[in-house]
Amino acid sequence: MNPTRGSDARTLPMPDLRDSFPGPFATSPYAAAIEEQTAHWLRSFPLVGSPGAAEALRNITARGVARVLPTADREGVFLCADLFLWLTAFDDVHGEAEGGRDTALLVRRISHCVRLLADHDEPAEDDDAYIAALRDLLHRFRERSTTTQYLRLTAHLRDNLLGILWEAHHLDDHDRITLSDYRAMRPHTVFVRTVMTTAEIVLGYGLGDDQRSSAAVRELEKAVADLAGWINDLASYAKESDDGGPPPLSLPTLLIRQHGCDTEEAFRLASRMCEDQARTARLHITELTAGSENALADHARAMEAVAASYVWHIGHARYRREARPMP
Amino acid sequence: MNPTRGSDARTLPMPDLRDSFPGPFATSPYAAAIEEQTAHWLRSFPLVGSPGAAEALRNITARGVARVLPTADREGVFLCADLFLWLTAFDDVHGEAEGGRDTALLVRRISHCVRLLADHDEPAEDDDAYIAALRDLLHRFRERSTTTQYLRLTAHLRDNLLGILWEAHHLDDHDRITLSDYRAMRPHTVFVRTVMTTAEIVLGYGLGDDQRSSAAVRELEKAVADLAGWINDLASYAKESDDGGPPPLSLPTLLIRQHGCDTEEAFRLASRMCEDQARTARLHITELTAGSENALADHARAMEAVAASYVWHIGHARYRREARPMP
Repeated sequence: MNPTRGSDARTLPMPDLRDSFPGPFATSPYAAAIEEQTAHWLRSFPLVGSPGAAEALRNITARGVARVLPTADREGVFLCADLFLWLTAFDDVHGEAEGGRDTALLVRRISHCVRLLADHDEPAEDDDAYIAALRDLLHRFRERSTTTQYLRLTAHLRDNLLGILWEAHHLDDHDRITLSDYRAMRPHTVFVRTVMTTAEIVLGYGLGDDQRSSAAVRELEKAVADLAGWINDLASYAKESDDGGPPPLSLPTLLIRQHGCDTEEAFRLASRMCEDQARTARLHITELTAGSENALADHARAMEAVAASYVWHIGHARYRREARPMP
Repeated sequence: MNPTRGSDARTLPMPDLRDSFPGPFATSPYAAAIEEQTAHWLRSFPLVGSPGAAEALRNITARGVARVLPTADREGVFLCADLFLWLTAFDDVHGEAEGGRDTALLVRRISHCVRLLADHDEPAEDDDAYIAALRDLLHRFRERSTTTQYLRLTAHLRDNLLGILWEAHHLDDHDRITLSDYRAMRPHTVFVRTVMTTAEIVLGYGLGDDQRSSAAVRELEKAVADLAGWINDLASYAKESDDGGPPPLSLPTLLIRQHGCDTEEAFRLASRMCEDQARTARLHITELTAGSENALADHARAMEAVAASYVWHIGHARYRREARPMP
């Protein structure tokens, strides 16, 4: 069954997030420079074969990262851009295209990444461009990170790789994915926890343990994490439903199954879920920026920019025409 | 081809590690208490269906953990025993038995674990015994850990789960596993990096960043990590070759393929590799315990006990008769 049958996906209800995230959203002064830098980086590490695909990837990465990190320094913005370019390229090339056909090959590729992430790495003669690029990224992040920041980053990168593997196992058969499965993994397949961690690293603030485990911070992060994945799902649904294959593994598909509703009703439900999370996020951002603890206010502003980078996507025409959401 | 054909696996060459690890190996005074405690824990969290399998698992876990932690306090020993029981049971029940047939189910089970490991967990109604038990374990470890220790532990647990998934993908078809693939993942499938991390937590010492990244510590840990997996492979080869299936995914099998040699020669090569790593480990243990830095000496002694717990397995009759090595 094609769940969009009977609905024009281009006119489906979308969340109205203007109350919570009115915009306009700040962007980095290095947005254009990111595109140049990533072109240079991709010459050292040829992750993407087609020049057209590489250019589209650089463009969307630059726009996304410029909104996540409007106030970060040049090197920090470049570093994050390179990382999200790596993650997205790995997902496109080894996850979706190849991993869906051969999950054993994908798990071997990921095992080579884990060797680096777990820091038990010795340079190997058979390194491919992805491994060489990951080594470069981890080296640069280590230079800027505290020990706990680096451990948190490498943990979330493992979760992203597992998320790619989880998705590859279910591309053509996701009837066995429950809404609970999906909610657990979606933040990892959209890389949003990694985005949050890199923001903390390059912006140079650090939460204390008590701050990080406070209800306000946890609820803010959770709201932004859910919002990121769900917006991404809604924004890319039309494109992903166009190819005549099975319905995409995304929130509307799962809501249709769960509630036995049509696509329009699923989009209405999903939009309401997004609006609720956006309100929760805004509430905690207001609360945390009003307090006297600097790191909490820095973190709230960083999470606001992370959310904004996804919210911005809703209006970004690229989704409806061309390619996949990012970061 | 059955690689043991023509060789009696019970008379194959085995490493002689007596120069490096002469024994006798100290054991915890709580060895017997561990068996009682794990019986109690398994009543709360029924991870293993068969009473016979549960008893064998408790027995081998108690013996292994008692040798890893001869000087740890009672609660610390119990905590590690429960964790290694969990890992081994997960591997047996969901990894080998079920995961080999249905890797998509295994990746979904692992995704539920990752939700807890990444600390984005909310108690879910559909938690099974494994998830409930993991929640209990993580809570108890968090109480005893520093932030970095806890991050390191949860990172290595992810690596163990990925290792189980890697193995499940290749149980019946490991021709595509290279020696380099194997060397990257074997420490994770034998759980040895997790053993090391739990020892550091329950023994209550902590390495500084400079100490941890020193050549002596890295080389010691690497030698012990390799030794653990290889010993385990050699000790369990006969049992794992007995079932008439494909040759086990283990060091002798890969050496036979790499060198085109017979099983006896592969065991001779593997034994020499083990002896070399044992010598390297001993060298660094001697060097680090002779120095004036207490944490380094504590760590060296902890790694010595980790190594001893695997070395001890070589002589432990269980391997040759009955069940799988542990921890």
